[in-house]
Amino acid sequence: MKGKVVALLVAGSLAVGAGGTYAGMTMFSDDESPSLLEKAIENGTERKIGSSGSAEDFEKIEKTYELISEKYVDDVDQEKLLEGAIQGMVNTLDDPYSVYMDAKTAEQFNDTLESSFEGIGAEVTMMDGYVTIVAPFEDSPAEKAGLKPHDQIISIDGKSTKGLDLYDAVLKIRGKKGSTVKLEIKRAGVSDPLSIDVKRDEIPIETVYSDVIENNGKKIGHMKITSFSEDTASDFEKQLKELEGKGIDGLVIDVRGNPGGFLNAVQDIAQLFITKDDPIVQIEARNGEKQRFFSDTSKKKDYPIVGLIDKGSASASEILAAALKEAGGYEVVGEKSFGKGTVQQAVEMEDGSSLKLTMFKWLTPDGNWIHKKGVEPTVKEEQPAYYRANPITIEKPLTYDMTGEQVKNVQTILKGLGFNPGRDDGYYDNKTETAVRAFQNANKVKATGKVDEETASLMEQKLLEKIDSGKNDQQLQTAIEVLFGK
Amino acid sequence: MKGKVVALLVAGSLAVGAGGTYAGMTMFSDDESPSLLEKAIENGTERKIGSSGSAEDFEKIEKTYELISEKYVDDVDQEKLLEGAIQGMVNTLDDPYSVYMDAKTAEQFNDTLESSFEGIGAEVTMMDGYVTIVAPFEDSPAEKAGLKPHDQIISIDGKSTKGLDLYDAVLKIRGKKGSTVKLEIKRAGVSDPLSIDVKRDEIPIETVYSDVIENNGKKIGHMKITSFSEDTASDFEKQLKELEGKGIDGLVIDVRGNPGGFLNAVQDIAQLFITKDDPIVQIEARNGEKQRFFSDTSKKKDYPIVGLIDKGSASASEILAAALKEAGGYEVVGEKSFGKGTVQQAVEMEDGSSLKLTMFKWLTPDGNWIHKKGVEPTVKEEQPAYYRANPITIEKPLTYDMTGEQVKNVQTILKGLGFNPGRDDGYYDNKTETAVRAFQNANKVKATGKVDEETASLMEQKLLEKIDSGKNDQQLQTAIEVLFGK
Repeated sequence: MKGKVVALLVAGSLAVGAGGTYAGMTMFSDDESPSLLEKAIENGTERKIGSSGSAEDFEKIEKTYELISEKYVDDVDQEKLLEGAIQGMVNTLDDPYSVYMDAKTAEQFNDTLESSFEGIGAEVTMMDGYVTIVAPFEDSPAEKAGLKPHDQIISIDGKSTKGLDLYDAVLKIRGKKGSTVKLEIKRAGVSDPLSIDVKRDEIPIETVYSDVIENNGKKIGHMKITSFSEDTASDFEKQLKELEGKGIDGLVIDVRGNPGGFLNAVQDIAQLFITKDDPIVQIEARNGEKQRFFSDTSKKKDYPIVGLIDKGSASASEILAAALKEAGGYEVVGEKSFGKGTVQQAVEMEDGSSLKLTMFKWLTPDGNWIHKKGVEPTVKEEQPAYYRANPITIEKPLTYDMTGEQVKNVQTILKGLGFNPGRDDGYYDNKTETAVRAFQNANKVKATGKVDEETASLMEQKLLEKIDSGKNDQQLQTAIEVLFGK
Repeated sequence: MKGKVVALLVAGSLAVGAGGTYAGMTMFSDDESPSLLEKAIENGTERKIGSSGSAEDFEKIEKTYELISEKYVDDVDQEKLLEGAIQGMVNTLDDPYSVYMDAKTAEQFNDTLESSFEGIGAEVTMMDGYVTIVAPFEDSPAEKAGLKPHDQIISIDGKSTKGLDLYDAVLKIRGKKGSTVKLEIKRAGVSDPLSIDVKRDEIPIETVYSDVIENNGKKIGHMKITSFSEDTASDFEKQLKELEGKGIDGLVIDVRGNPGGFLNAVQDIAQLFITKDDPIVQIEARNGEKQRFFSDTSKKKDYPIVGLIDKGSASASEILAAALKEAGGYEVVGEKSFGKGTVQQAVEMEDGSSLKLTMFKWLTPDGNWIHKKGVEPTVKEEQPAYYRANPITIEKPLTYDMTGEQVKNVQTILKGLGFNPGRDDGYYDNKTETAVRAFQNANKVKATGKVDEETASLMEQKLLEKIDSGKNDQQLQTAIEVLFGK
């Protein structure tokens, strides 16, 4: 009887998982394939549930509930207490990817998912107790505003995120196109929080971008996958055919900043490049049983292929990167990836609340579990330092003999723009002043040698232009070189 | 029937609360007086419990429990899940002073309490999700190692405190006398965590220190209360009689760094100085009912009295400060206090676990609730900046043209030691170099103008000597001046 209840609960889940990721849900997840799901259900019904909590155990929960309800100094929302109990159980798992949504939050989430998706366009997760940016979407408001992977969101519109769960936080960040949300950000290496305004927009759900780059007489196909959602595999296949029709000499598969998505989406893409000899990925259940997923492709593509990853590449992106590297023997260029090696399944409760629970691990073709480790690139390449520059906050103009992080940031940006001040330790010396003057002269503003708001905003603008142009994408450049064995 | 269960639970509580605070429990709390306790029990039995959670509500908790137990990717500790549910309910209160201890933790705690207390000697609380120092005890290892109020403890012996509750953290910090615990500290205004080793010691439970200070021909009694525990009121009364026997001309009651304790202890002390015309404190229950506590003293002392507080003065200390100020009309010197305006009651469960629950607010004689606000001194006085200097961390010697927080810290310390470098913004200029040389010459080490480990440790030592001498206690000095109307 109890077994049956569990099975029913699990059976109700697939839709939520699928719907969620499809419409640009701001969580990354590998929802399992139907075959595994059915396997899970089967296990559920077959297994005896013998070790459940005894009646006395639950009685203690009830007594605490009554004590708090009756005696706490303020009036207590009893519904919240019960939801807190469920949240508390999920918290003991110490797994940022197992997440509980109460009925109201789940409903709001589904509403948002059904309409077109309006927000800031960033994937977030819960890390170290903070809502944390995994990666901003390509060309999203979040990216334009300067949000970076691993940024911790400490407040939203002036309200602390402390105690908010991930879903509540996401609902506060989302909102009508054109409206603005003010985020307070804690960034590693920056002691004062950054205040960043992001103007919300409609977030497109295209997940595959492709173009042909001409380089030394070769045609390189560059395919960027921004997340693995429902249509990603078919979009990818279609665009790859187009590239092949144009006669590409090589292919770069770029999953930088890609936070993941459906397991079957990445499987469908990986099997275009991986032959049937090696598993693409292995899914391991709690009992240690492993299910290996194989391609039915018998022949490799006749052009070279390179994967491209960075520390924002998570989950399904890491499955792809590991498959390319270990099963395909391809080079993978970039930075060590995020490190998420688990698979979640959403379970809808009868009252509309929902529990997204980590049920499986995934292992690389060689059987490695990359959780909290990440996939190492075969060829390391970082973007230049100015890619990681922060927005400049000007309280009073920065001038000679000042010191601090804002000066350091300006020095990094100046160097990135070709006006190298010779130091980037945050002390505003004579050479920094000279570099600022040179920048001001080149941009036809008064050469004061001081960084006021006007100069700061000009610096930020020029830097974004330089990054957006794509001409300085050092990682992509290296990937192309590696492609042809240089 | 249900009402009776609750009443029994509450009745079992007084011993734990009392035992806990008596033996130097590292939590600050105002345990209520028996009369109020009995009142609470009475309310409990009389009130109808009509609004408890329905069976279906608890069923959802049970289902989630089963789902996680059966399906989570790793083996699940089911006991931990149930404890998590209770912890989760307590967390929804968003009250750092309501704390749940499972049976094992509660037992370990009682063990520690019964033996003599060995640890680092600091009061801690949970703030913003971090174990946070309220105040180190006087002359404790924590104070000597340089721990400060509001320091956040982010790791203990290399293990993150994330996810630890307060009690677990305290048990890890405590340990055998002579052993060392390594704390990683996040301090406001310091971007990199500080690593601080503290050698544990036996922590004395004396809570009252008194001496006579001679100043301009006057004898000033200086009574310092470090916490309000079982014997504090009688110790205070005894030592006050001794001071009065020596013919003091005035009294400074010093509760700086005092994190609180028993409500009745502070009441017994306050009524020595407050007459029966005004309430010492008002205790407010959830239903808004207030109980006022009056003194039976009819005549004020014939010498002037001044209170002395700082931002480490919390809870019972704030009751005393507010009573002195509002009911006694005395001056209170120092800094705005911590801001804790609630009263907790420990409730022991049948299985040995314990819930410390906020059940009352306390209001000042005039009816103000100072929670999260603090008590404002009537005369503001801060200690000099060097009282707040941080331990110096030397990775490589600090030299000319360097910049950063360590340089800033050294500049603050140099100024405090009388070698003013003229700036404290963290840039190591020529004048800083000159000041370092002067310090080195005065202390007979080679005048390199660089701060290496030897010079840094000498600076720290000289600074601690200066602070420990007591001669530079600016707040106490001001309190003495205020005493005689200067």
